[in-house]
Amino acid sequence: MQYFPNIPKIPYEGKPSKNPLAFHFYDADALVCGKPMREHLRFAMSYWHTMCAEGTDMFGVGTLDKTYRQTDPMQSALAKADAAFELMQKLGIDFYCFHDRDIAPEGATLAETNARLDIVSDKLLELQKATGIKVLWGTANLFGHPRYQNGAASSCSPEVFAFAAAQVKKAIELTVKLGGGGFVFWGGREGYETLLNTNYALEQANIARLFTMARDYARSIGFKGLFYIEPKPKEPMKHQYDYDAATAISFLRKHGLQDDFRMNIEANHATLAGHTFQHELRVAREEGFFGSIDANIGDPLLGWDTDQFPTNVYDAAMAMLEVLSAGGFTTGGLNFDAKTRRASNTFEDLFQAYVAGMDTFALGLRMAAKLLADGRLDAFVTERYAGYRTGIGADIVAGKTDLASLEAFALRMGDVSTTSGRQEYLEHLINTIMFE
Amino acid sequence: MQYFPNIPKIPYEGKPSKNPLAFHFYDADALVCGKPMREHLRFAMSYWHTMCAEGTDMFGVGTLDKTYRQTDPMQSALAKADAAFELMQKLGIDFYCFHDRDIAPEGATLAETNARLDIVSDKLLELQKATGIKVLWGTANLFGHPRYQNGAASSCSPEVFAFAAAQVKKAIELTVKLGGGGFVFWGGREGYETLLNTNYALEQANIARLFTMARDYARSIGFKGLFYIEPKPKEPMKHQYDYDAATAISFLRKHGLQDDFRMNIEANHATLAGHTFQHELRVAREEGFFGSIDANIGDPLLGWDTDQFPTNVYDAAMAMLEVLSAGGFTTGGLNFDAKTRRASNTFEDLFQAYVAGMDTFALGLRMAAKLLADGRLDAFVTERYAGYRTGIGADIVAGKTDLASLEAFALRMGDVSTTSGRQEYLEHLINTIMFE
Amino acid sequence: MQYFPNIPKIPYEGKPSKNPLAFHFYDADALVCGKPMREHLRFAMSYWHTMCAEGTDMFGVGTLDKTYRQTDPMQSALAKADAAFELMQKLGIDFYCFHDRDIAPEGATLAETNARLDIVSDKLLELQKATGIKVLWGTANLFGHPRYQNGAASSCSPEVFAFAAAQVKKAIELTVKLGGGGFVFWGGREGYETLLNTNYALEQANIARLFTMARDYARSIGFKGLFYIEPKPKEPMKHQYDYDAATAISFLRKHGLQDDFRMNIEANHATLAGHTFQHELRVAREEGFFGSIDANIGDPLLGWDTDQFPTNVYDAAMAMLEVLSAGGFTTGGLNFDAKTRRASNTFEDLFQAYVAGMDTFALGLRMAAKLLADGRLDAFVTERYAGYRTGIGADIVAGKTDLASLEAFALRMGDVSTTSGRQEYLEHLINTIMFE
Amino acid sequence: MQYFPNIPKIPYEGKPSKNPLAFHFYDADALVCGKPMREHLRFAMSYWHTMCAEGTDMFGVGTLDKTYRQTDPMQSALAKADAAFELMQKLGIDFYCFHDRDIAPEGATLAETNARLDIVSDKLLELQKATGIKVLWGTANLFGHPRYQNGAASSCSPEVFAFAAAQVKKAIELTVKLGGGGFVFWGGREGYETLLNTNYALEQANIARLFTMARDYARSIGFKGLFYIEPKPKEPMKHQYDYDAATAISFLRKHGLQDDFRMNIEANHATLAGHTFQHELRVAREEGFFGSIDANIGDPLLGWDTDQFPTNVYDAAMAMLEVLSAGGFTTGGLNFDAKTRRASNTFEDLFQAYVAGMDTFALGLRMAAKLLADGRLDAFVTERYAGYRTGIGADIVAGKTDLASLEAFALRMGDVSTTSGRQEYLEHLINTIMFE
Repeated sequence: MQYFPNIPKIPYEGKPSKNPLAFHFYDADALVCGKPMREHLRFAMSYWHTMCAEGTDMFGVGTLDKTYRQTDPMQSALAKADAAFELMQKLGIDFYCFHDRDIAPEGATLAETNARLDIVSDKLLELQKATGIKVLWGTANLFGHPRYQNGAASSCSPEVFAFAAAQVKKAIELTVKLGGGGFVFWGGREGYETLLNTNYALEQANIARLFTMARDYARSIGFKGLFYIEPKPKEPMKHQYDYDAATAISFLRKHGLQDDFRMNIEANHATLAGHTFQHELRVAREEGFFGSIDANIGDPLLGWDTDQFPTNVYDAAMAMLEVLSAGGFTTGGLNFDAKTRRASNTFEDLFQAYVAGMDTFALGLRMAAKLLADGRLDAFVTERYAGYRTGIGADIVAGKTDLASLEAFALRMGDVSTTSGRQEYLEHLINTIMFE
Repeated sequence: MQYFPNIPKIPYEGKPSKNPLAFHFYDADALVCGKPMREHLRFAMSYWHTMCAEGTDMFGVGTLDKTYRQTDPMQSALAKADAAFELMQKLGIDFYCFHDRDIAPEGATLAETNARLDIVSDKLLELQKATGIKVLWGTANLFGHPRYQNGAASSCSPEVFAFAAAQVKKAIELTVKLGGGGFVFWGGREGYETLLNTNYALEQANIARLFTMARDYARSIGFKGLFYIEPKPKEPMKHQYDYDAATAISFLRKHGLQDDFRMNIEANHATLAGHTFQHELRVAREEGFFGSIDANIGDPLLGWDTDQFPTNVYDAAMAMLEVLSAGGFTTGGLNFDAKTRRASNTFEDLFQAYVAGMDTFALGLRMAAKLLADGRLDAFVTERYAGYRTGIGADIVAGKTDLASLEAFALRMGDVSTTSGRQEYLEHLINTIMFE
Repeated sequence: MQYFPNIPKIPYEGKPSKNPLAFHFYDADALVCGKPMREHLRFAMSYWHTMCAEGTDMFGVGTLDKTYRQTDPMQSALAKADAAFELMQKLGIDFYCFHDRDIAPEGATLAETNARLDIVSDKLLELQKATGIKVLWGTANLFGHPRYQNGAASSCSPEVFAFAAAQVKKAIELTVKLGGGGFVFWGGREGYETLLNTNYALEQANIARLFTMARDYARSIGFKGLFYIEPKPKEPMKHQYDYDAATAISFLRKHGLQDDFRMNIEANHATLAGHTFQHELRVAREEGFFGSIDANIGDPLLGWDTDQFPTNVYDAAMAMLEVLSAGGFTTGGLNFDAKTRRASNTFEDLFQAYVAGMDTFALGLRMAAKLLADGRLDAFVTERYAGYRTGIGADIVAGKTDLASLEAFALRMGDVSTTSGRQEYLEHLINTIMFE
Repeated sequence: MQYFPNIPKIPYEGKPSKNPLAFHFYDADALVCGKPMREHLRFAMSYWHTMCAEGTDMFGVGTLDKTYRQTDPMQSALAKADAAFELMQKLGIDFYCFHDRDIAPEGATLAETNARLDIVSDKLLELQKATGIKVLWGTANLFGHPRYQNGAASSCSPEVFAFAAAQVKKAIELTVKLGGGGFVFWGGREGYETLLNTNYALEQANIARLFTMARDYARSIGFKGLFYIEPKPKEPMKHQYDYDAATAISFLRKHGLQDDFRMNIEANHATLAGHTFQHELRVAREEGFFGSIDANIGDPLLGWDTDQFPTNVYDAAMAMLEVLSAGGFTTGGLNFDAKTRRASNTFEDLFQAYVAGMDTFALGLRMAAKLLADGRLDAFVTERYAGYRTGIGADIVAGKTDLASLEAFALRMGDVSTTSGRQEYLEHLINTIMFE
């Protein structure tokens, strides 16, 4: 049985096509920089938005039914798994990401909930074997249930902490069972609504405690992948502790977690924190914490998490430039943590949205490759800092100077000439390459 | 004598060129939709940023000297005029925009100031005749001098109001003398710093009084062009009265100024007001107030007026789509109210920035033309609202319904089906056309 | 039967009390400026947030059950009405505001829905008679149901328009039946998600058509109150047409609705539009459109509608200064369109929140009255603009000047002196009065 | 000779006074929590804004002359020193902060510049001895001169780096000479305008190199005070590396600078980074990096650095609560890095602004002391996390648990009850104490 019978497998038709449900730019097996596009991009489907979210917003109910013709929650969960693999196969997506609660509904007790997860994950494992589709990463939903209203690891209640720990344990086991390459922590409720009621130090320490226990447990059962922190500055909380990459990396280093954790950077979260997507990727890369990507974007004029499918080729090109500069993904990939607009109320829109997002990143990859092949961008930066490779510059970098020696140098040197940053040239250069 | 001897006339070299000081996309005389690009785009140079601004910011002094090798202010002003025309000719720019204080420095008295304006405008008129370059619009700087610290037309001092009126009178005369097609009001100081000290009603009424006097005077001396309001929500003031297009249009209608005034929309001001550039153009167009454009952009993550040269082809394409849909410019045009970044501290950067901006809008024009030629975007919108052309929809539009008749209809009709807005399809469509 | 048996009637205990569930500043019958506080403030309960909203957010389900011990939706609706009046009586709140869908659940057909509304409104009417509590305003929920995903009056579907019209008709009838003083339009879905699919002109015209029909119908059945527009710039839509007071007032004037419509200003919506709460009230007041207030606030660092209970006395004082300056409310009042934080998961928190909000506005009223009694603030503004009451200033205001006469004046007058705006003095003055 | 002859020494007159140039709340020697207010607050004057800044903004020239009746720059600098001490004495301010370039103008060569600094600092030292006024902290202006257009320590030019190092050396010497308790780094140009031209890793490493050399040199010449980083996210740069406290603390720890460096938190910079002032103070305090404060504020609706004098008592109270909780200032203090509004164009406004700011923080201190004395706020937080002091909570904190033991616990415990965060109660509590 098909869930999307009117949607064919999405073909690559190239630029001249006017078929909206075809790839114009994403040719999975075409080589870019000597590697197939699918290996560069490692696209992943988000189970929650794609298979579960019905289009509710704070002012309206859902617009697209996602019960998959079932009324019993477990039957619906099993049908959803079939539908998910149909969708991924038709789109040619090789990976998916999931929260524990996406794949199976919570039961009356934790034991029942875990039993349900076993049932659905058995089915997912079968479907994986049948199709070759893999788990990019798993995670635990520690934010949706009322018990987490005051946080999970940062809750004021140790009982809630314990429940969260149990849930993380199971989610790690599921991830290992399904062969997932990573495990994500997104701290949607790990933060505060008001400092008036908050013990900042204890909350932060407790989060580190959970991460440490999770790491230790996962390694003990054979998990070889990476943990990822997904920074977000706010929403739903007034303030979330993993504000941005710099903050999250600082936290990891402080608590000795830097060998096992990397960043999962989301474009939308970057802009909510006041940064560009590229900035967060650059920070992650340069600090040695580049991991995985949530490719969905926000609207720069809106102050909440719109989770839109990416369609801006500039942003995709800059992101892929960082990915290529980092040497590409290892266990990470490009997850579409994206939802169709509420008024895009058909499954066709959902397919269309993935096509749009995948084509955008395919273009981004092609553009990044062209920029690298062109070489002028890299050459400019190398030349700009050339002064640090000889003379006083090399001495500074080598630690051979102090304030006194530099003052002596400065007193001798006379006027300093400044060189142009040539931002307009560089921006124009990119347009000439992107639109050539 | 040349002021930019190392910069040649900028050629059109097309896409394959690697010459940064060449147009890759702007081919002035090439036809798009049956009209030369130069007539579509009507590029204008901003006298202030381009010829006067030296790169100061709130934390640092200038980085590029613009005294044109003169120490006497009037000699510098005259040299600046020569330099301006050299720059425009080398760039192939057909128009310029100016404030009174850009072209000549203020003297010890108003009379002396006006005499200086006569001298420099004589020279500008000669240069215009020699080159064919024209004035897109003129304006009066009613914000830089300390006398305007509390506003010009909205000042608490009638003496300041009178001075502003005198300055506007002279600036209109200059605009007429130089054959300018428009006259702009940007109310940089027309607003408030705090409501605690502000008589909102009197200030607004006084602004309308100045506009009315200006309109009447200009018409009395033969000005045939349009007045433009340039909306901006804030900066330098906490709040500026011309917050956005909707607010400014409301003001004009309230005060009976709608026949003589149009909007001069600036991308940067749009985003500061929480709108897209396209939104402000759409409002102006649909309300019948489309006039002219300041093409410079801001940074969506920065909260001040960065006045950057535009290099985003998406934004340029959407803007040109609005321009083409409005039937093109009449007396308006595309002014680059833009400054090079402070670290772009050479005149070569200035030329480069114009090349970048002009090429970007040339691409924008080409993309807009392709979108219109393709037709799918327009067809989608037409089809989406088709219901209002027949049946109950046509009755609603024709004013033939009331709540009772619509209730009766609604009680009969049963469930309403909703159609998808297909945003992801439309965004993908644009990419397939832009990157085909 | 009581729904909140552990909550007593909230007493006024004055400043020394340490009872959190007592008013410290709101003494309903105490006279301020010769009028009881309750008449100045006209507090209203929002039926939706207070009686219906359970604490869901975009990342989590509800935390406080509001089914009132009933499983049948209609029984729950009737119980909710009892609970609402118990809550209002215990808090000493004299008014409430409601959407049609807050008081009764939607049925299978419009006819059934309307029948349900009749049943519940009968009960509400009884409760009103028994308690003296009144309706501040009614409204129709034209945003929650999927049929409104593309807008209501601005929908691309005339069938949706018709359904909205029918719903407005019934909501007006309910408002009249319950003696409501006003009827509100909040255009939560009247805007656009993307301009790519939007016919801006038709959508705006259709909104005006619905407003006009609503006005005409309401007057035909004896409605004597005011209509209110509640401006909001965005959320849930990317852009809402009633962006702010200036935009909404412009729309009303353009379409000839200025005699029947006023503004319902919400603090939270003001800040989302880039304005202070006081600014929006000032605009409404000075333009003659002051109507009613939603007193809830947002968080200036968060970009979505947090709908928090107001606890900032500065903001409340400035708001009440505008209210007093406008001559006080007529049919309007102070509605708490506010929800408790999601982690405030008890009914005690709900009472506490109202106490906090009411006390804050009571303080605001007292502070505003003190500022007016002190007189220095008003005197400063009067003096600041004194120049416009004599001489050239009076001539300008009287329309006796033109650019030529003002230029002649300016040429004679020499240097203009500027006076300080004294913002720091005024801000300090307010602190010395508020904290004396 | 007096520079402000019309301004008397500002007296403390208490609440009933209507004298705007008197303290109503700041009674320097009054005891709060057993310590004089002046010792709690350690107010400091900012030499740059107070003595040098004339009211320029990006759209207008200065409105208040600060040449102190001198035309020669060095004579003006010496007069300025006298004026500064007159101002501080009249206001009863015990400390000041300065950049090297505030106190003496740059000369033709570095040697001349340094000689000028010696002359003026000799005079400052005399004035300090005569008055008892001290230096809170010194700093080097590494952002105003064109040479720093690409950064100072992060410049692409090692010559610029050397010049910056020389300037820092001299500024440290001056700070030591004048007995300053601290030395600040504010990285106004240490960041990037565009990632396209930026070597992020080298720039960050070079900043650390300069800090390390500065620390080593200062210690070698006997500096016993603290270094402070002043985080700011942007402006003038697109991105500044010391984005916020979390980011700056991370940087310091990474580079082994945590023993010598603390945070100088500015309210205005906090909000530009998306944080509350209290948040940044809390982060600094809890991470062990609390140092000093710049007390000026921004406008939450404006996106640039408005540097306003603080007049919001809520914010001041929360800030002082953090200061008292941190044990008070050691070498730090409250610096007014604030400027009068441009339209406050008199020296009287400058005095008025300091009175407003000092009174606001005096109120903030009194309110914070009342909140602590009341005790309910602290008690609430202690009680909220009580679960972590016994049982499973204590085990978690003690590191005695792992995922398996917590899962076992969770499987046993059944439903978890959640407790209310009681935000509305706490906000109301604060109002009842502040306005009692």
